[in-house]
Amino acid sequence: MYIPTFQDVIDAHERIRPYVHRTPVLTSTFLNELTGAELFFKCENFQKAAAFKVRGASNAVFGLSDEMAARGVATHSSGNHALSLAYAAGRRGIPCHVVMPRTAPQAKKDAVIGYGGKITECEPSTSSREEVFAQVQAQTGADFVHPYNDPRVIAGQGTCSRELVEQVEGLDAVVAPIGGGGMISGTCLSLSNIAPGVKIYAAEPEQADDAARSFRAGHIIADDAPVTVADGLKVPLKELTWHFVSNHVTDILTASEQEIIDAMRLTWARMKIVMEPSSAVPLATILKNKDIFAGKRVGVVITGGNVDLDSLPWMYKTEQGE
Amino acid sequence: MYIPTFQDVIDAHERIRPYVHRTPVLTSTFLNELTGAELFFKCENFQKAAAFKVRGASNAVFGLSDEMAARGVATHSSGNHALSLAYAAGRRGIPCHVVMPRTAPQAKKDAVIGYGGKITECEPSTSSREEVFAQVQAQTGADFVHPYNDPRVIAGQGTCSRELVEQVEGLDAVVAPIGGGGMISGTCLSLSNIAPGVKIYAAEPEQADDAARSFRAGHIIADDAPVTVADGLKVPLKELTWHFVSNHVTDILTASEQEIIDAMRLTWARMKIVMEPSSAVPLATILKNKDIFAGKRVGVVITGGNVDLDSLPWMYKTEQGE
Repeated sequence: MYIPTFQDVIDAHERIRPYVHRTPVLTSTFLNELTGAELFFKCENFQKAAAFKVRGASNAVFGLSDEMAARGVATHSSGNHALSLAYAAGRRGIPCHVVMPRTAPQAKKDAVIGYGGKITECEPSTSSREEVFAQVQAQTGADFVHPYNDPRVIAGQGTCSRELVEQVEGLDAVVAPIGGGGMISGTCLSLSNIAPGVKIYAAEPEQADDAARSFRAGHIIADDAPVTVADGLKVPLKELTWHFVSNHVTDILTASEQEIIDAMRLTWARMKIVMEPSSAVPLATILKNKDIFAGKRVGVVITGGNVDLDSLPWMYKTEQGE
Repeated sequence: MYIPTFQDVIDAHERIRPYVHRTPVLTSTFLNELTGAELFFKCENFQKAAAFKVRGASNAVFGLSDEMAARGVATHSSGNHALSLAYAAGRRGIPCHVVMPRTAPQAKKDAVIGYGGKITECEPSTSSREEVFAQVQAQTGADFVHPYNDPRVIAGQGTCSRELVEQVEGLDAVVAPIGGGGMISGTCLSLSNIAPGVKIYAAEPEQADDAARSFRAGHIIADDAPVTVADGLKVPLKELTWHFVSNHVTDILTASEQEIIDAMRLTWARMKIVMEPSSAVPLATILKNKDIFAGKRVGVVITGGNVDLDSLPWMYKTEQGE
C-alpha cells in the first residue's frame, strides 16, 4: 500500500491547476454570531462538476501515461466521483467507463452522460457490479480509479485544504464530512505537513456513523447499507483512508438527520448557496458542539452542490428523521 | 426634482462602504456555452440583507444629519427595501418604521423584525396604507425613504454597476431587472458617466411589462396589481426613474413566467447559488435574445437572494404559467 506524501499533493496541485477552480472562501456574520466561532467556508460546491472529488479524479486522469490514458478510466459509483471522473476524462479526451445499477435514478445517469461518461449497467447487487466491472476492465483495459482508497485521489483531495490555509490565516481547526474518508485523508495529509497545529474534525451522520465507531474501536467497522439524507457519506473507510483517520484526526463528531437538514437549510437561507446534504454535516456538528469551537477560527469544507432541486430534504420527512 | 449626479454615486460609495459588501462576480462555463455570450454575474444575492437595495437604503440612512437620524426612517414596503432599510438603520442605531398590511405573510414580517424594524400594520388598501403611514410620520418625524424614487437611493444603487465595471474589463452590455427602476436608474447614472459605450438592457416579466410599454409609449404607464413570480418587479416607474430609463436604456426585454422560472432553476442548478425569481429575469431575456448578446461581454445583475425555500416556483404551477 503506497501512502501518498505531501510532495504528491504539491505535484497534484500543479497537475490539476488548469482543470479545477481555486474555490472561494465565504464567511457569514450570522453564522459566526450563531456559533460563537469564526467560520471560513471552503466552497467546493462552486468547483468543476460541483464537487471536490474533481481534484482527486483530475489528478488520477492527468497523471496517467499517454499509453495508459488511451485505454481510459473506469469506476463504479453513481455519485460525485463518477461525475468528476467523467469531467476529468473529458478534459483529457479519453473514455470514462462508469458501471451503475440499472435501477439508479435517471437523473444521475443523465448527469454522468452529460459530462461525457459511458455507462454500463449492472444489476443492483454487489456481485453483479463486480462482475460487470471486471468485464468492462477486461474489454477496455481502463484504469480503475477508486473514489477514495487510491493515493492519487487522496493527494488530489489534499489540494483543497492546502488552498484553505493559503486563503485563511491562523486557522485553529478544520471540519470536513467523512464517508469513505478521501477528503479527510487529503486534509490530514496536507495539514499534518503545512499546519500541524490545526485540529482536524470529521463530521458524520449519526445514521452512518461507521467511521466514528471505527475511530473509537481502533479498527475499521463497515455498516451494511446505512440510510441517511447525506447520501455521499454512506460508504465505509478502507485501509488507506483508515491510515490517515487513525493517525491524524482529532475527533469524529456526529449529527442527526434533522440536525443535518436544519444546517443545510440554514446555509441556503443565510449564505445563499446551493449545497448538498453531505456538505451540511460539518455545520450541524459545530452547532451542537459550540464549546469545542467557540472563539476559534474554523475552516469548514462544503464538499459539493449536486442536489435534486425538485426534492429538497426539508420538504419531506426522512425515513428515520426525528 | 433633484436628479442625482455621478458625484452622488462616488459620495454614496464612500459613505456606505463600511456597511455593504463589494459583492463577487461569478461566471459559468456552462451558461456561456448555452448563450454564446460571456456572462459576468454581479452577485447581490450575497449582499447584506441579500439584496442590492441595501446600497440605496444605507446611503439614505448614513447621509442623514444626526438630528434627522435620531427621528429614524420610515417606509412602506414588504420586500427587500424594508429589510435593507431596517438593516441600515440598525447599523446606525436609529429606528426604522415599516408600514405593512396586516395580511402580509408572517415570514416577511419576521424578516423585517429580524433586522430590527418596527412594524405598524395597516389594512390591505392604498388608502389605509397612506393614512397609517402619515400617522407614523407625524408621530415620529421619521424620514421617508422611498424604495426607488429617491435620489439618495438611486445614487446608492449606482455603486453596484460602478463596482462591476471595476471588476470586469471591456463590458459590452449590462442587463438588470426592472420594477420601479431603482437599480436600472443607478446603472444608467454610473455607466453613462464611466462607461458610456456599454449598452443597458432592462429585463422585465411579460406579465408586469409596464416599463416596456412605457418605454415604447414615451410616457409612464402604471399597471394595477400585475401578477408575476418575480414579485420584486410589480411596481411602476416614477418620475425620477423614468428620467433615467427614457434617456439611457437601450431596450427593455421581457420574459414569460415559465422562462423566468426555467432561468432561475438553471442558475441554481449550474451556478449553485440561491437567488430570487426577479434575479432570473435578465438570464431569461438573454436566453431568448441570443442574437443580441452572442459574442458580447455581458454584465448580469443578480439583484437578491430572498426566496421562500419552502415553496420554490418550479414546484408549483404559476397562476398564469404557460
